[in-house]
Amino acid sequence: MGEQLRFGLVGGGEGAFIGQVHRMAAELDGLARLVCGAFSSEPEKSRRSGSGIYLLPPARCYGSYAEMFRTEQALPPDERMDFVIVATPNHIHFPVATAALEAGMHVMCDKPVTFSLAEALTLKEKVAQSGLTFGLTHNYTGYPMVKEARELVAAGALGNVRRVSCEYMQGWLATEQSGNKQADWRTDPARSGVAGCFGDIGSHAENLVEYITGLDIEELCADLTTFVPGRRLEDDGNVLLRFSGGAKGVISASQIASGRENDLSIQVYGELGGLSWAQTEPNSLNLYWPDRSQEIRRTGVNTGASATDATRLPAGHPEGYLEAFADLYRNFYAAIADDVAAVGFPTIDDGVRGMRFIEQVVSSSKDGGVWLKM
Amino acid sequence: MGEQLRFGLVGGGEGAFIGQVHRMAAELDGLARLVCGAFSSEPEKSRRSGSGIYLLPPARCYGSYAEMFRTEQALPPDERMDFVIVATPNHIHFPVATAALEAGMHVMCDKPVTFSLAEALTLKEKVAQSGLTFGLTHNYTGYPMVKEARELVAAGALGNVRRVSCEYMQGWLATEQSGNKQADWRTDPARSGVAGCFGDIGSHAENLVEYITGLDIEELCADLTTFVPGRRLEDDGNVLLRFSGGAKGVISASQIASGRENDLSIQVYGELGGLSWAQTEPNSLNLYWPDRSQEIRRTGVNTGASATDATRLPAGHPEGYLEAFADLYRNFYAAIADDVAAVGFPTIDDGVRGMRFIEQVVSSSKDGGVWLKM
Amino acid sequence: MGEQLRFGLVGGGEGAFIGQVHRMAAELDGLARLVCGAFSSEPEKSRRSGSGIYLLPPARCYGSYAEMFRTEQALPPDERMDFVIVATPNHIHFPVATAALEAGMHVMCDKPVTFSLAEALTLKEKVAQSGLTFGLTHNYTGYPMVKEARELVAAGALGNVRRVSCEYMQGWLATEQSGNKQADWRTDPARSGVAGCFGDIGSHAENLVEYITGLDIEELCADLTTFVPGRRLEDDGNVLLRFSGGAKGVISASQIASGRENDLSIQVYGELGGLSWAQTEPNSLNLYWPDRSQEIRRTGVNTGASATDATRLPAGHPEGYLEAFADLYRNFYAAIADDVAAVGFPTIDDGVRGMRFIEQVVSSSKDGGVWLKM
Amino acid sequence: MGEQLRFGLVGGGEGAFIGQVHRMAAELDGLARLVCGAFSSEPEKSRRSGSGIYLLPPARCYGSYAEMFRTEQALPPDERMDFVIVATPNHIHFPVATAALEAGMHVMCDKPVTFSLAEALTLKEKVAQSGLTFGLTHNYTGYPMVKEARELVAAGALGNVRRVSCEYMQGWLATEQSGNKQADWRTDPARSGVAGCFGDIGSHAENLVEYITGLDIEELCADLTTFVPGRRLEDDGNVLLRFSGGAKGVISASQIASGRENDLSIQVYGELGGLSWAQTEPNSLNLYWPDRSQEIRRTGVNTGASATDATRLPAGHPEGYLEAFADLYRNFYAAIADDVAAVGFPTIDDGVRGMRFIEQVVSSSKDGGVWLKM
Repeated sequence: MGEQLRFGLVGGGEGAFIGQVHRMAAELDGLARLVCGAFSSEPEKSRRSGSGIYLLPPARCYGSYAEMFRTEQALPPDERMDFVIVATPNHIHFPVATAALEAGMHVMCDKPVTFSLAEALTLKEKVAQSGLTFGLTHNYTGYPMVKEARELVAAGALGNVRRVSCEYMQGWLATEQSGNKQADWRTDPARSGVAGCFGDIGSHAENLVEYITGLDIEELCADLTTFVPGRRLEDDGNVLLRFSGGAKGVISASQIASGRENDLSIQVYGELGGLSWAQTEPNSLNLYWPDRSQEIRRTGVNTGASATDATRLPAGHPEGYLEAFADLYRNFYAAIADDVAAVGFPTIDDGVRGMRFIEQVVSSSKDGGVWLKM
Repeated sequence: MGEQLRFGLVGGGEGAFIGQVHRMAAELDGLARLVCGAFSSEPEKSRRSGSGIYLLPPARCYGSYAEMFRTEQALPPDERMDFVIVATPNHIHFPVATAALEAGMHVMCDKPVTFSLAEALTLKEKVAQSGLTFGLTHNYTGYPMVKEARELVAAGALGNVRRVSCEYMQGWLATEQSGNKQADWRTDPARSGVAGCFGDIGSHAENLVEYITGLDIEELCADLTTFVPGRRLEDDGNVLLRFSGGAKGVISASQIASGRENDLSIQVYGELGGLSWAQTEPNSLNLYWPDRSQEIRRTGVNTGASATDATRLPAGHPEGYLEAFADLYRNFYAAIADDVAAVGFPTIDDGVRGMRFIEQVVSSSKDGGVWLKM
Repeated sequence: MGEQLRFGLVGGGEGAFIGQVHRMAAELDGLARLVCGAFSSEPEKSRRSGSGIYLLPPARCYGSYAEMFRTEQALPPDERMDFVIVATPNHIHFPVATAALEAGMHVMCDKPVTFSLAEALTLKEKVAQSGLTFGLTHNYTGYPMVKEARELVAAGALGNVRRVSCEYMQGWLATEQSGNKQADWRTDPARSGVAGCFGDIGSHAENLVEYITGLDIEELCADLTTFVPGRRLEDDGNVLLRFSGGAKGVISASQIASGRENDLSIQVYGELGGLSWAQTEPNSLNLYWPDRSQEIRRTGVNTGASATDATRLPAGHPEGYLEAFADLYRNFYAAIADDVAAVGFPTIDDGVRGMRFIEQVVSSSKDGGVWLKM
Repeated sequence: MGEQLRFGLVGGGEGAFIGQVHRMAAELDGLARLVCGAFSSEPEKSRRSGSGIYLLPPARCYGSYAEMFRTEQALPPDERMDFVIVATPNHIHFPVATAALEAGMHVMCDKPVTFSLAEALTLKEKVAQSGLTFGLTHNYTGYPMVKEARELVAAGALGNVRRVSCEYMQGWLATEQSGNKQADWRTDPARSGVAGCFGDIGSHAENLVEYITGLDIEELCADLTTFVPGRRLEDDGNVLLRFSGGAKGVISASQIASGRENDLSIQVYGELGGLSWAQTEPNSLNLYWPDRSQEIRRTGVNTGASATDATRLPAGHPEGYLEAFADLYRNFYAAIADDVAAVGFPTIDDGVRGMRFIEQVVSSSKDGGVWLKM
């Protein structure tokens, strides 16, 4: 049934975290394998990372993404990379993605899609022109029970949605973290963009809310705060939401929620019932009904097609973050193979929407917490 | 050590719920007993409730609170009621409480303290003039682990508080409930006041937030919604908060969160650690620390003085809503006995603050969701 | 609708724990009140406890249960006690209960019902002869969701029961506790009986298992251990069970499960489904089905008659140990009032069965862990 | 740092479940890759599975394991497989493992290690003679928090262990499952061995208990049952345990626990504290202390070296079954590379011990539930 796709990785060198995550997720189902990378902008470090971490031959550990695309393009079709994973700080997403598309390679890009909304809009045009497949790793949408939630809402099981809330609580930036590579670029406006916390995790919440409910945020009112002295981007915020169709909601995101790890959770209430999901117990979906017992629905039991398709193990064997991440890749491969529009993974449109959200949240808060249209 | 206090009850007749709760809570520790009541404004129904539900002699089941205070005042000191419990719809709190104070009786009043802020301010003066003890049943502050949370924050265990969120999710009003006695008055502006959901449960959230953190809400921005067609008061809302000292937060309250029951929960994050508590598991307090394991602190193990004093059973025997409610009464009795200022139960000051919150939340939302000072 | 019953308490003096629990539970629903007691075998201490803890007049704080029964019998019918609560160490249950029955008073007795099986069998005869009501406080059967579990099993919702397990984990005796009044008598063969841990909590597990499943334990094989050096009764044990009808199971009870409090839990599996319940979250019943989501059934939502009747508060307001305990009293009062056979509370028959279980568990273990018939 | 190891898979053809699990686990860390397999004893099906499921070239999809070993041996050293994964029904483990060792290939074998204890003892000798690395996939020992539990016990944090209990509840065999490939061989004595439930999951519990506590089971008393009519092997059982050093315990395993999935959990209590872990929330370890709060220890926060090494993601990103499984492989590769004795993964010794447990459990139960030495 064909052979494995081949991919290159930009970013993910020594000290990085998300590069290995992408590699594991992309390879999990045995459908693709890493063949090359530009793991660092320092050629020597790139080579060291490539052979040390990824066991790649030195010849395919490149000193720059430009060199990688150029060299790979020249390889025989059955050797060269098919797609690139962009796992760099935000400000480099746009140039890498653009170069990849120009080199005829599909792209899976980390989020937020670009440094700014303007870049995102430009990239959207380039994707359209290229005819290539572009994915965005809003990875939480890959959890089977998140898909189940979306399917239930879409099927009307909860009735019209009225109330949505989502929070993403982290504590790792509750104190100054200078010297921490992960912290450094995330709190630097030159590399992260106009937002810190909301670029990094608030945009995940926004994407999750819209993914599950199928609703668009129409207006928002944000109050962002920088709690840690000297920090240049916000590290906490709360946003009131008004949705198309009249639903209301709140998104809270924080990186100063001391002691919390990656506590992403969501609640949705409709006329007929409610649901909640939390990343700490990702294999369960809570369903609330007025006149019936609470349900705990689990992967593999009683689930709809989208959750079932996204589940690899028999019921009761916990799947986690990597498996959810891998689901995006699996669907991305299907889109590449079938040459069809994206199904089952976030795209450049989600990316544009996310950038708009980030910029409006920042604007609202800067103006004292006023209501703005999306 | 003396004898039991005697109390009368206003409200709590057939079909009521909170009257029996007050009776059970007030009597739980064996320190007081119900001796009379005006259970309904219909004399016949009051008598029927008094003898049928409360096993009282007909002579002490009064047709009105006025009659009760007048008659009881004339009884010998060792027979007559010492205090009154006001368990009526909101619009009757003020006249009953005022009459009780004038008759020389202490008052335990259900929340919100009055129909309006203006009434609350007047009542505050009357309490001060009377020299009597006035308590308000923001009963969630009676849970031992809520007290533990307050004590930990006050002791600086979490460092300066930065972020607070509290939500109270109910679903029982997700559909029209006409004919339901509990629903009828709560959704009627003439009996409930300017707010529905926020008068009933949002004010509990406000009180809990300020009780645990010791912080004052200084500014708020509210977005309230009436989702059920035809309803005259809001049934859902979200409020952004700015606290004295710079902390930020959110309160969410809903009566249309389909399938939820009384899901009150709170999270507090300081510079050094965080905590969360939920009424669904009231005997546990979650504590989060950056470099240590999460703690689940339980009543009776490792708790401070305030939680320990509020605990009746050995560790591991679950206590619930009634026991927390009873704690307010126990402290109220101590205040009466010692003739000291209130300790350990909400007072008229909390009542005034709650009414101010309610009115500002409604005003903010009416103006489109603007920031208002408390 | 009549007046409150009046009761006396034997035991429950200074330093006791369970006396106040009985008092609170017996009075919770406003249907009965404590009027007298023999709180200690030292008359002075009894008086001090009676007036200090229970606010009783000295005249009704007796120096012995014999004096209490004699004196109370001579009071006018509308003043004298109607029933007695026996809240003493095990070895005194039998003489107090016997004396009460002889004085024409109903009895609510703590568990295990007597010091030995022989005493229990004698007491059973005396109860039968007396025509009076006798209750036993296996209080865990008073939880609404335990009743729901029983009702579901009885209705066949799980199909024929195949597998049952129940454990009761405490840690308070993991180390020597000399000087602790509660520990002293429980670990003393002269006051506790042939068993320590199994007399105190293992018998609760046995009762709960038979209550929920409606099955009789037919054979058992026990392995008991005394872990703490110098202790004279077992502090831990595991028992294999064979039930009437072919079901199998295990009961584990321990008082040396370091750090656990009162972790009583049960699981039952039938041909069609399973259930679990734990005292740590008493208001929820977990139901497991092969092809459907797990259910979390809660008091007040979707429950059968027996659970609904045992629930005092609207759904979502947690009830606890005291409320469950109080349910036994409420049913006990109904049996007294209606002069009918016991319904809804454990009786002398449960007591006899419990003593047989305790004695056979000890015998099995003494013989090296052999199978014995109940 | 070297290149990827190459492995072949025996079993794992169409309709299998565990083959893909092994493949994903073995490849997760990018240290090895599947290069060949004998996926079925039917050559055509093997080829179809190999190319369809695993995207392998037809030339390396063999019709038998014998053919595979023979052919691969003849390949150049930098192409041929380095080790084999045995993922077949139990009765084929021994011949495949033996053939692999004879062909000079390392072996990772599914559990139970062989069809009988006699085979296991023979295999142990062959492993010793071969000088090759042999691993056994008792995969639950790969969870970081299971490793943390072991490390805590070994360090004496709980004091001497007194009480252990472990249960593994499944419900998928609560009814007859004829035609289900997974069920067919597991309930067939000719392919599964003397035990059904205890061969499949009871042996996991035994291994987990001994792994975490470091104690040996010395005596056991078992009561096994076949509940489903017509089934030839037990589908449920409970086993009393006596450990070296005096600890006591229970293992329960069931495949008729209707509605349960893979509910493996363990509790351990020592003189100073206790712990519990459950596969449903694998990233948390509960620690119980007499005078301190319960701890919930999580991967990545406050954990010892063994758990930290086994964790791939930052704290709060849930890892699951596959990641734990992969940890065994990672340690297996390290043992191959360093040519050292096994560290961090189960070996043939665990396999022998498991077979002895299975056979003694069956013998004990056959004799009516008598105590037998291990």
